[in-house]
Amino acid sequence: MISVQEATARIGAHPGVPPATQIPLSQAVGCILREPVHADRDFPPFHRATMDGIALAFAQAAAGRRTFRVAGTVYAGTPPVRLADPESCVEIMTGAVLPGGADTVVRYEDLQLDEGPGGRRATLRGTPEKPGHNVHLRGTDGRQGDLLIPAGTRLGPAEIGVAASVGRATLTVSGPLRVAVVSTGDELVEVDQVPLPHQIRRSNAHMLGAALREAGAAPALFHVPDDKPTIRRTLERILPEHDCLVLSGGVSMGKSDFVPEVLRELGVETLFHKVAQKPGKPFWFGRAAAGQAVFAFPGNPVSTFLCCYRYLVPWLRAAGGQPVLPAAHAVLDETIRFPPPLTYFVPVRTYQDARGVVRARPLPGSGSGDFANLLHADAFLELDAGTDTFPAGEAFPLIRFRNG
Amino acid sequence: MISVQEATARIGAHPGVPPATQIPLSQAVGCILREPVHADRDFPPFHRATMDGIALAFAQAAAGRRTFRVAGTVYAGTPPVRLADPESCVEIMTGAVLPGGADTVVRYEDLQLDEGPGGRRATLRGTPEKPGHNVHLRGTDGRQGDLLIPAGTRLGPAEIGVAASVGRATLTVSGPLRVAVVSTGDELVEVDQVPLPHQIRRSNAHMLGAALREAGAAPALFHVPDDKPTIRRTLERILPEHDCLVLSGGVSMGKSDFVPEVLRELGVETLFHKVAQKPGKPFWFGRAAAGQAVFAFPGNPVSTFLCCYRYLVPWLRAAGGQPVLPAAHAVLDETIRFPPPLTYFVPVRTYQDARGVVRARPLPGSGSGDFANLLHADAFLELDAGTDTFPAGEAFPLIRFRNG
Repeated sequence: MISVQEATARIGAHPGVPPATQIPLSQAVGCILREPVHADRDFPPFHRATMDGIALAFAQAAAGRRTFRVAGTVYAGTPPVRLADPESCVEIMTGAVLPGGADTVVRYEDLQLDEGPGGRRATLRGTPEKPGHNVHLRGTDGRQGDLLIPAGTRLGPAEIGVAASVGRATLTVSGPLRVAVVSTGDELVEVDQVPLPHQIRRSNAHMLGAALREAGAAPALFHVPDDKPTIRRTLERILPEHDCLVLSGGVSMGKSDFVPEVLRELGVETLFHKVAQKPGKPFWFGRAAAGQAVFAFPGNPVSTFLCCYRYLVPWLRAAGGQPVLPAAHAVLDETIRFPPPLTYFVPVRTYQDARGVVRARPLPGSGSGDFANLLHADAFLELDAGTDTFPAGEAFPLIRFRNG
Repeated sequence: MISVQEATARIGAHPGVPPATQIPLSQAVGCILREPVHADRDFPPFHRATMDGIALAFAQAAAGRRTFRVAGTVYAGTPPVRLADPESCVEIMTGAVLPGGADTVVRYEDLQLDEGPGGRRATLRGTPEKPGHNVHLRGTDGRQGDLLIPAGTRLGPAEIGVAASVGRATLTVSGPLRVAVVSTGDELVEVDQVPLPHQIRRSNAHMLGAALREAGAAPALFHVPDDKPTIRRTLERILPEHDCLVLSGGVSMGKSDFVPEVLRELGVETLFHKVAQKPGKPFWFGRAAAGQAVFAFPGNPVSTFLCCYRYLVPWLRAAGGQPVLPAAHAVLDETIRFPPPLTYFVPVRTYQDARGVVRARPLPGSGSGDFANLLHADAFLELDAGTDTFPAGEAFPLIRFRNG
């Protein structure tokens, strides 16, 4: 039997590697980029008006000219035009290409427009500040070929916008880890079935599927009865098709707990079996010959749940390139005594007191290990194996399992 | 022109109401439940063994009996049996139904098994603590008909586990808000097209689609050219099919900015037009006759982006029942002067200094309004309209747009 710390270290030594996959841009938000994205042309690609107004040659205004003939109007999307002569101007809308021969935009607010004898005219209220005013010059933000988004970046909406602007309709990203969730147990029936009095519905697999999905993995759910040849046949078939295997049940010392034996027969190396913790002591972890991590949790729902949030979810987040969550602590509300030499994970409800301190009220529940015990809790408090008494008022590590 | 605070209040007065929808349990994690979930039978549904060992009648052991004939073995999933007589016992595995006539489980650790002349026998090492030891009695955690999960709950993995155990293969939840994203602008071409020198690709709509998706909404992307009848026809068609409309472009004072006019013609009430802020001053907000919120953002990418994170994302999170993010602040690294009477949203990169203080380094960029200016930033700092000078060392509100 190993400690919680040692179990964490051994799991961390076998990080998951998600497969690279090409997906449409519209599905890429939140994914980790696996290729660099470069500029396919200059940013911006042309001298661009940043205000609505008129485009003119600065030298004319600097030389004292106030009135310019308006030769036309260009909009964002109008193909490039040229000023007919330096004494004319063109009305220009934000985003339009600056006409050839012009180098400056004067805002509508800084001029007057009227219809003169020779047609439409613009009269400046003053001299523009400098050449290039209200113009965003080609290439200011980036040059063709520049690296815009390096591989390894988590793609947020800003990166999606940049990728769209350089024409990346598809992107190579880390796909979700393909995780097989396998529940065992003859007492289990499907969710849509009515159980006989001695049966219960399959809830662990659905809980695990939900937690995996929330952590960004792609779960596939399987069920096997407590029959060794069937367990072996099923695991043999699904192992090569997945990046990770998560089992629930069949790892205790009971007469029908075949899982560790079958996994060994399939060439999965045992990295540990049993952790000095409550709940979840029979937790088994190993690595398949082809590298897949195999987590085998005890079948008790709260044990499975604790192991999932204490070990599996952080491992999945790391594999998915998600940011490490900051370590959290909470101050215990009531003294807890727990003499066994095991790390005790007690369900708690957290809240902030008037001084902003995060506190934890223990909700040990009926101890039955059913999910119903967790409905009012939002975290586990981790009470280390080294001590018997955990005094009220002290802070202990917190494992949150709810976002809101 | 109204203030940022007033714009926030007016938007908040028109909350989004997501449609109720029935979905399979496997897709429900993270959703808001729209119906109560009750227990369909007692929790646990039978007297259940919580340890591997033997099941016996406590009275016999209390009366001094140490050796019991082993009459068989029951597993989790074995239909209920009865003790043949009070002097016998049954081997029992965790999760199995307690046999009729038995009321207590003694763990394997607390007994010895051997083969006697009359068959298999179990001999206790001591007297069990009390009747009911290592048995989880029927109905301890809940009674048939009990409310387990009230409507309005965000479904985490624990709730999914409970829903599975009471047979809810489908659940009624809040579906994603159906949001139409409409980009305007003749200069825009599709992402997979090669733009002519005066054209650019459609990136705002993709950025908005990504942000909406991240906030839990269901975006649908549309594009209209700068042509009033086409804009009107398109909006008239898509408005009834969506819970919310988000437009990008066409709300400034330029000659082809038809959006506010068309929206008015379609019966969308103007709740405000123009906010005293930079970027994003021309922001327009209204409400359609059928109740849909309509956000019309300026077409400049950074303006659209700021409006999206400052106004739209919090509104979507509230509509989706997601937890309110705690207000965040950061300490400004460099003094900023900004004289116009506008709230200035400056892109920043945040970091924690050695004392744990969150600080913000301004990254105003080229001011071009292109997404490339945001790639190195992770938030905006909100510098209020009331002041000209924002001193280094003071803390200001932060609008984060990256998770990691």
